[in-house]
Amino acid sequence: MTIQNALAELTSLLGQGLSRSKSDLDQHGASESHFPLSPPDAVVYPESTEQLSDIVKICARHGCPLIGWGAGTSLEGQAQAFQGGVSVDFSNMNKLLRVSPEDMDVTVQPGMTREELNTELRATGLFFPVDPGANASIGGMASTRASGTTAVRYGTMRDNVLGLQVVLADGRIIHTGTRARKSSAGYDLTGLFVGAEGTLGLITELTLRLHGQPEAITAAVCAFDSIDDAVQAVIATIQMGIPIARIEFVDAATAAAFNGYSGSDMPLCPHLMVEFQGSEAGVAEQAEMFGDIVADHGGKGFEWATKPEERTALWKMRHHAHWAVLASKPGAKALVTDICVPISRLADAVNETRADIETSPISGPILGHVGDGNFHAILLFDDANPDEVKAVEALSHRMVERSLAMGGTATGEHGIGIGKKKYMEAEHGAAWDVMGDMKRVLDPQNIMNPGKMLRGN
Amino acid sequence: MTIQNALAELTSLLGQGLSRSKSDLDQHGASESHFPLSPPDAVVYPESTEQLSDIVKICARHGCPLIGWGAGTSLEGQAQAFQGGVSVDFSNMNKLLRVSPEDMDVTVQPGMTREELNTELRATGLFFPVDPGANASIGGMASTRASGTTAVRYGTMRDNVLGLQVVLADGRIIHTGTRARKSSAGYDLTGLFVGAEGTLGLITELTLRLHGQPEAITAAVCAFDSIDDAVQAVIATIQMGIPIARIEFVDAATAAAFNGYSGSDMPLCPHLMVEFQGSEAGVAEQAEMFGDIVADHGGKGFEWATKPEERTALWKMRHHAHWAVLASKPGAKALVTDICVPISRLADAVNETRADIETSPISGPILGHVGDGNFHAILLFDDANPDEVKAVEALSHRMVERSLAMGGTATGEHGIGIGKKKYMEAEHGAAWDVMGDMKRVLDPQNIMNPGKMLRGN
Repeated sequence: MTIQNALAELTSLLGQGLSRSKSDLDQHGASESHFPLSPPDAVVYPESTEQLSDIVKICARHGCPLIGWGAGTSLEGQAQAFQGGVSVDFSNMNKLLRVSPEDMDVTVQPGMTREELNTELRATGLFFPVDPGANASIGGMASTRASGTTAVRYGTMRDNVLGLQVVLADGRIIHTGTRARKSSAGYDLTGLFVGAEGTLGLITELTLRLHGQPEAITAAVCAFDSIDDAVQAVIATIQMGIPIARIEFVDAATAAAFNGYSGSDMPLCPHLMVEFQGSEAGVAEQAEMFGDIVADHGGKGFEWATKPEERTALWKMRHHAHWAVLASKPGAKALVTDICVPISRLADAVNETRADIETSPISGPILGHVGDGNFHAILLFDDANPDEVKAVEALSHRMVERSLAMGGTATGEHGIGIGKKKYMEAEHGAAWDVMGDMKRVLDPQNIMNPGKMLRGN
Repeated sequence: MTIQNALAELTSLLGQGLSRSKSDLDQHGASESHFPLSPPDAVVYPESTEQLSDIVKICARHGCPLIGWGAGTSLEGQAQAFQGGVSVDFSNMNKLLRVSPEDMDVTVQPGMTREELNTELRATGLFFPVDPGANASIGGMASTRASGTTAVRYGTMRDNVLGLQVVLADGRIIHTGTRARKSSAGYDLTGLFVGAEGTLGLITELTLRLHGQPEAITAAVCAFDSIDDAVQAVIATIQMGIPIARIEFVDAATAAAFNGYSGSDMPLCPHLMVEFQGSEAGVAEQAEMFGDIVADHGGKGFEWATKPEERTALWKMRHHAHWAVLASKPGAKALVTDICVPISRLADAVNETRADIETSPISGPILGHVGDGNFHAILLFDDANPDEVKAVEALSHRMVERSLAMGGTATGEHGIGIGKKKYMEAEHGAAWDVMGDMKRVLDPQNIMNPGKMLRGN
């Protein structure tokens, strides 16, 4: 009854601030992915770092698990409570604490979402570029090392977090990093907590790099005869060093799902969706260079979205891809794959994946952030049909094997959680043990998001 | 006699490959900095990762220290053997193992220097941008998280290392990272070993990001009436988002040292040295925008270096600054400070430092990578004069205090070694203990570069 003892003490500390209502527990036990409902024993809504430290100390005394909760948009079960315990919902810690336009940085609490942050920043001439599609929380984005459509230009959360405040498993509060743009002062603890999925501590403050809102932005969609043509155009664009802000691939099946969901009228063939950002002259130069590459690869039907509302509609359509594909097969569950390969192997990886899906009973549109070598197949299946479940798992497994054989990774941006834990040994070998060492020394009782990422925890 | 027992076993393993000659020991006990000669007990020259693993296993059995040695250019005593042991010289592990122009990446051994790497890459149209000035080894650059003149555009070693092979303190060989451009697969161990100064393991292979050689490059020098004018021009350049490739500040004292050492004829006032890289049109646009900023801040005497040989001469002069300043006071030792502050505080930091030096008995030219908020004072002193030693240490101490109070770091790029260990508590607080936890779990005997960076080791 260790969890029950923790809950008793937490109730004395928090009163109404600890929730055990069924709706709350169910909400915090669910995810946007295919994993079964796994409710925590309670949900807490910390108001401050100090209060969270007190909560963690109580849980540490009783060996009670703590699972961070941002916006609930993670895809590998990272925020679900598979071993019970306390879900730590950061929705009351969602403030902008400080913005310094002259330094182009900001400090926020983890519960703020990326859309809220960019709304707050609108008047400063700056923006936070990392864009995973979902309106995720900043804390969750850091914890899964999220990226998305703009990483090809602005990098991932790894590149845009300057420093953190973290509550460790024993309740200690530490700061990592500084507000300087670079430092050689010791181990990169900021980088260690970014991507750790809450298994080493809970992030309570984040200092982020900001970027100037570009003077000019142009977006476009163009169509290709084959996957290979589209992907070869991406490879040429990256190799030419064009500083493209977004370059997204969607295959014919994804275009069909867009048409059904967003009322668009895209031809049923592969497409690239791109965006250029910079000075007026810079954007014109990039667009011209890209136009030449597209022409060389048989691209056609170039449609420009220069007005802000056209661009918004374009990227809204892209961001709703997950829902569009789900809606194309009512009642289906989705397993979203997430491999990322060296760019020279991208065409092989996409073609082999497409062919593999075609010979399976599974429907699986492909789309992704191809400028990074990262793409997704959204594999639709009926979770009551064991044959489909098996086929989906086998497809996903072969994709990861293919990626690792090409020098790539099992996950470009979705993270490990419980969904990709089975690939850690193959990707990391003995380095996975080193991750386990880090975990053991910082969380010897294994109370921080247990069951995720690490071997046998 | 644990070290002696290790040496006996190493001699059986390596024969002539283990050196105990006085000249070898002295060379590996010295540095380019002011720390006393601290020779190791022996020097080994591993030929392969497997051989190094055997060496480490022997040392681990006998508790014998291992200190990595690249090109000996570190400035905080990182490669010196203050507790004796074995210096691991990587000069026989200096090969380019693989280059993939289409993926814009390369795998090298740690003993290769950055100039050797760029010579090898010349025909590929690609280059490795990180440029600390000295012709450092790539392994050493990773271990100190080096940066230098181009970090403002291309980032530091943190941003340009994709993956590593590392020999741990028990001889285990691990791989970190993949060749994919991004990954969310577990803890960022690559980031943990980059900047760890060999205290967690010895790096034996590095996979690096490359960048396209720019179509056009232009460099320039311009003069300013005051430090404040020059630094305000830098701040405006960064805030405008101009993708400048280099932006270096030198004060009047540095200009005088250049004139004496390189035969230049710079006016004795503050200067900025800049470089633009990109397409022809892009470089022209950047140069025009920067010209406007300079004019707004009273800059004058704009001298362009458009020919490759002029640019080479310009950056050679900058890279020899350390030697130029040392030559300005024959027989003097130098303590080089290395603070890095948020850009909005840069003018305050430089001005306060300049004023502090002026009121001391010490001569200390100021120069640096001001686009990152990072600058150096090269404090010259007579190490036989206790008053000067005391004055230099007090100046350096106040600079770090000032930087930390401004939200900056004690070291932008030189690292900790033994020279800056005394500032770790003030900069990191409890996070320094977390670094100690990492160290203890990966190197429980404290044989990997003992005495450096960590509390009480």
